Amino acid sequence: MSEVQSYMDFVLPLVLESGKELLTVKNIISEAKNGNDWDVVTIYDRKIENLLIDKIKMKYKDHKFIGEEESAAKNTISTLTDSPTWIIDPIDGTANFVKQMPITCISIGLTINREQVLGLIYNPYMDELFTALRGQGAYLNGNRITTSGETKINKCIFNYELSLAAHDGRLRELYMSRLTALIDVVSGIRSYGSAALGLCYVACGRIDAYQCDGLYPWDAAAGTLIVREAGGYVIDSSGKPFDLMNPNFLATSTETLSQQFMSIERSVDVSRLNINEKTV
Amino acid sequence: MSEVQSYMDFVLPLVLESGKELLTVKNIISEAKNGNDWDVVTIYDRKIENLLIDKIKMKYKDHKFIGEEESAAKNTISTLTDSPTWIIDPIDGTANFVKQMPITCISIGLTINREQVLGLIYNPYMDELFTALRGQGAYLNGNRITTSGETKINKCIFNYELSLAAHDGRLRELYMSRLTALIDVVSGIRSYGSAALGLCYVACGRIDAYQCDGLYPWDAAAGTLIVREAGGYVIDSSGKPFDLMNPNFLATSTETLSQQFMSIERSVDVSRLNINEKTV
Repeated sequence: MSEVQSYMDFVLPLVLESGKELLTVKNIISEAKNGNDWDVVTIYDRKIENLLIDKIKMKYKDHKFIGEEESAAKNTISTLTDSPTWIIDPIDGTANFVKQMPITCISIGLTINREQVLGLIYNPYMDELFTALRGQGAYLNGNRITTSGETKINKCIFNYELSLAAHDGRLRELYMSRLTALIDVVSGIRSYGSAALGLCYVACGRIDAYQCDGLYPWDAAAGTLIVREAGGYVIDSSGKPFDLMNPNFLATSTETLSQQFMSIERSVDVSRLNINEKTV
Repeated sequence: MSEVQSYMDFVLPLVLESGKELLTVKNIISEAKNGNDWDVVTIYDRKIENLLIDKIKMKYKDHKFIGEEESAAKNTISTLTDSPTWIIDPIDGTANFVKQMPITCISIGLTINREQVLGLIYNPYMDELFTALRGQGAYLNGNRITTSGETKINKCIFNYELSLAAHDGRLRELYMSRLTALIDVVSGIRSYGSAALGLCYVACGRIDAYQCDGLYPWDAAAGTLIVREAGGYVIDSSGKPFDLMNPNFLATSTETLSQQFMSIERSVDVSRLNINEKTV
């Protein structure tokens, strides 16, 4: 058994147990994070993250951690090193969780030598477990999954996480200009409110493309590996090389589909930047 | 037992059985409807609608029917009369169904004397059954549900069915101008791809508001009753009286929230219409 498989075997029961505990929760109180009404956290986010970090740390003393809540607490994100590093979002889609919308999950990725080697995403409400180990394919509840294989943008169901545009003027301009250009090209638009599950839905072919700009490592660490292991394609939507520590991702069923998105978005971005330069 | 309750008791097992059959379906082939690639139908839409109409007709010979697929076949929507009329969407969210995204459902409404008296929506993938009889509250799997009660637009999770803007220039302009005005006011944006379930999610508080412009009677017949019976508020987003046969709906947790949406949207609509008049 490989080393990474043994990590998966250790962490999987912890995640399933934490997920199942969430199912018993009622009347969830959220509090604003970073002074923003819309960026919410609950006691369950902190409880799950602490539990996972404590248990993994006890077993693997040299492993490192980058967690959504520990990063919020210390107001900075640790630098990624070559050490085995667990990147944890204890509850992805917290706004959905608070309202008991069953599209929310626990997401855990692991990097070794700064490479993504393990991804695990569990939605307890649908009892759906998405997993991947590098080079070994992607799975939903133990069954191998692949992307839809869609190659045509006009047949594409496109998940664009528009909520990210709601609270940041710069991102809003970027999202709205790209959406305006894409909306009459794609077949359908979705916004599900969970980055990790949005990526899983590309991986298993429920949607064909998913884009998020302005996210964090814990939103992408597990899901982007799962997409790639399902035969999908992940790039940085800004045109730069994909950087897990600063992810702006476009995840698609195929490389061909990715190129069609990029061709449209690059042209929109150039127009937007030209307009902005003129108005400076 | 009331007459309407007896109709519910008759139709409910038929819907549950049809829904459970959908779970066994694999490799769904869709075909374009009305010559549009994006407006898809499957053999299952037709099969379920035919089954429901046949069984109900056999039991209640004087009842009438307005179904998505029978309307498509005859290329017109029957006029609503005072007769008991079953308004049926055999598969709402067909694009989700085709891709096995588990947000899709069977939706059935009943009108008597042109009033909505029964609503039944079943999502077999999550085994979620939403029901309402007029004046008797709304239920999810037999448990009474109510809306979130949210009254503030800046705390609101807003589901806007943007796919409807993808294929119609007039609707696109309307959706995009309203979205542009609303996106920095609301707390979050969603698009789930099923009108009937979007309404149910308002009814049970998973979202606070849902808006769809340019829909059909079968998309709204069950869900709008379920929202109202859950204490929610439904209006025609164009400002005209709500018309089930030509539904443009805004469904909200509260009337106060509805007024805040309308105040913003009316102002956007006036600007858009002024611009359009000048450019004619």
